Amino acid sequence: MSQNSDNTISSIGRPGLIRKIAGYSTFRSEEVVYGIGDDAAVLAASETRYGLLSSETFVEGVEFDLSFMPFHQVGAKVVSAAVSDIYAMNGHPRSILVNLALPNRITLDMVDELYKGIGMACADYECQLSGGDLTGSHNALIITVSVYGDIEKDKIVYNSGASVDDAVCVTGDIGSALAGLKILLREKRHWEESEDPVMQPDLTDWEYVVKRQLVPVARKDLVTLFHDKGIRPSAMIDVSQGLLSDLQRLARNSNKGAYIYQAALPIDLETRKVADEMQEDVDKYALYGGEDFELLFTLPEKEVGKLTELSRDFTVIGKITGKNGQIEMQTAEGDTVVFGEATD
Amino acid sequence: MSQNSDNTISSIGRPGLIRKIAGYSTFRSEEVVYGIGDDAAVLAASETRYGLLSSETFVEGVEFDLSFMPFHQVGAKVVSAAVSDIYAMNGHPRSILVNLALPNRITLDMVDELYKGIGMACADYECQLSGGDLTGSHNALIITVSVYGDIEKDKIVYNSGASVDDAVCVTGDIGSALAGLKILLREKRHWEESEDPVMQPDLTDWEYVVKRQLVPVARKDLVTLFHDKGIRPSAMIDVSQGLLSDLQRLARNSNKGAYIYQAALPIDLETRKVADEMQEDVDKYALYGGEDFELLFTLPEKEVGKLTELSRDFTVIGKITGKNGQIEMQTAEGDTVVFGEATD
Repeated sequence: MSQNSDNTISSIGRPGLIRKIAGYSTFRSEEVVYGIGDDAAVLAASETRYGLLSSETFVEGVEFDLSFMPFHQVGAKVVSAAVSDIYAMNGHPRSILVNLALPNRITLDMVDELYKGIGMACADYECQLSGGDLTGSHNALIITVSVYGDIEKDKIVYNSGASVDDAVCVTGDIGSALAGLKILLREKRHWEESEDPVMQPDLTDWEYVVKRQLVPVARKDLVTLFHDKGIRPSAMIDVSQGLLSDLQRLARNSNKGAYIYQAALPIDLETRKVADEMQEDVDKYALYGGEDFELLFTLPEKEVGKLTELSRDFTVIGKITGKNGQIEMQTAEGDTVVFGEATD
Repeated sequence: MSQNSDNTISSIGRPGLIRKIAGYSTFRSEEVVYGIGDDAAVLAASETRYGLLSSETFVEGVEFDLSFMPFHQVGAKVVSAAVSDIYAMNGHPRSILVNLALPNRITLDMVDELYKGIGMACADYECQLSGGDLTGSHNALIITVSVYGDIEKDKIVYNSGASVDDAVCVTGDIGSALAGLKILLREKRHWEESEDPVMQPDLTDWEYVVKRQLVPVARKDLVTLFHDKGIRPSAMIDVSQGLLSDLQRLARNSNKGAYIYQAALPIDLETRKVADEMQEDVDKYALYGGEDFELLFTLPEKEVGKLTELSRDFTVIGKITGKNGQIEMQTAEGDTVVFGEATD
């Protein structure tokens, strides 16, 4: 193995690494309709339905912090994060597997609490806990949730189907999960610095954002609405990495770009208050904060009115352009900032 | 949370923990045909086929040791271990997802090597690498492989279908993966104790067992034979935890017991040599050593002759009894030892 200075994973980043890995996916199975590149792999299931498969790993100290996250909330959150990938394909989660790598300090009661949260989330998403794997770990608790879902063939939504002039829409609000994390990390720091080990953090002013961080909810409700009302987005992805990163992925996979309006970004008042208190730019929370598990989707212009009549829980933030891979944003001052270079 | 002394996971063991977890699987999806308890979850796919879903997590320092396992072999091994669960249901693996939690010290070249092994194993098992997840890790490299497979409904084999007097069969030989691990750990110790950092271990006498540990092969060949020749075991499981533990699971899930013959255990000569050199009991390697990824299955007596004509690569080691959960073994001296108590 060469040991040149560019041999780090960070030198090519997450998208680069995914492209590299895709290069090793050389065997093609007829049962796989679509492999690497979307929120879930798409499987041939029956004449009328596709299977959907996704898996996510959560590492203690990276994805979750047990010092301020109770086990049952961790359990619920990992399920929400996993099923969100199925909703992002417009699908229905059906079955999940949970793998645990358990360090010695994890007790039976902790595992019990974790599964209470997993079980409740499974019921919410109408999806059956169907197995998993148990192993040991020297340090961190590691949780992997794999989820199988399905979808009628004519209702599947890829992240690659956006057309020029489609409206770019996002559900709920964004940046609030990151705002909640900032508050929780600040309270943790205060607690660590205090002389009083039983000090309780005062989170009353930050209830909404803290909840968004600790117990995010995957947007089953919107997908149900899409199905019930016959609305089909042209492209969809969930906001897990951050709005900008996820929009870039949707745009690139569609061979398109996007033009969005900073003023249109749906940001909760509490998120703004957090940014003010931290003396940070709230738009950065909205653009780069991940884990909101909202749905980012594109709709033909004529469908927007229809959806507006049915739901107020989404916002049009811009439209799709022909500039491959390029995200442009009109700032509140009327300037245009550009993220990423157009490739054709 | 109570903090009593019985609050450790080891107090109830792996089977106890699995039973406890099953108690949280309260939501039932119509799309899940069989949940917790077999090698893979069974999903409703089409009129004629079931989907199969399994996932395994491999933690550096627990399941694999990078000091003597090259990355490409780790990659191949984790795929073999994962698809083995699909073969154990008599199924065909179709799609795998690989999740990595990467510590900083893992370089691009290492990830490259890992995926070379994954890609080659996927081609061997005719299964497409279709996605996964990437995250960070503070210490250990953690790999999760999730696999989706399928099987014609009338060909599925559960681990719960054994009948009294069925022959208990195992493919290949057992205990050799553990023997290989013992050799590798000894050579690692020698290397650590030696003054010579470039000392190379001499593994020429142990080629077979070391290969069994480093690059085990899942028994696609036997499952293909079963399908081609219309043979259907009454029950099947793969030897991943160890023969005794896996046989006990198969017996218990079938509400049966088993009587096996120590003299019949298929043990390779090289495995015997390792045990001799270590001054250990080779039968313990065979009974308790895991990771052989052989298939342990039961066949009605009349089918045994048919399979014998088709393959020499399996051994009848005993038969199924009516003693629920009890494994009896006739020793070479003619005594009978009993593992586990019959529960009815």
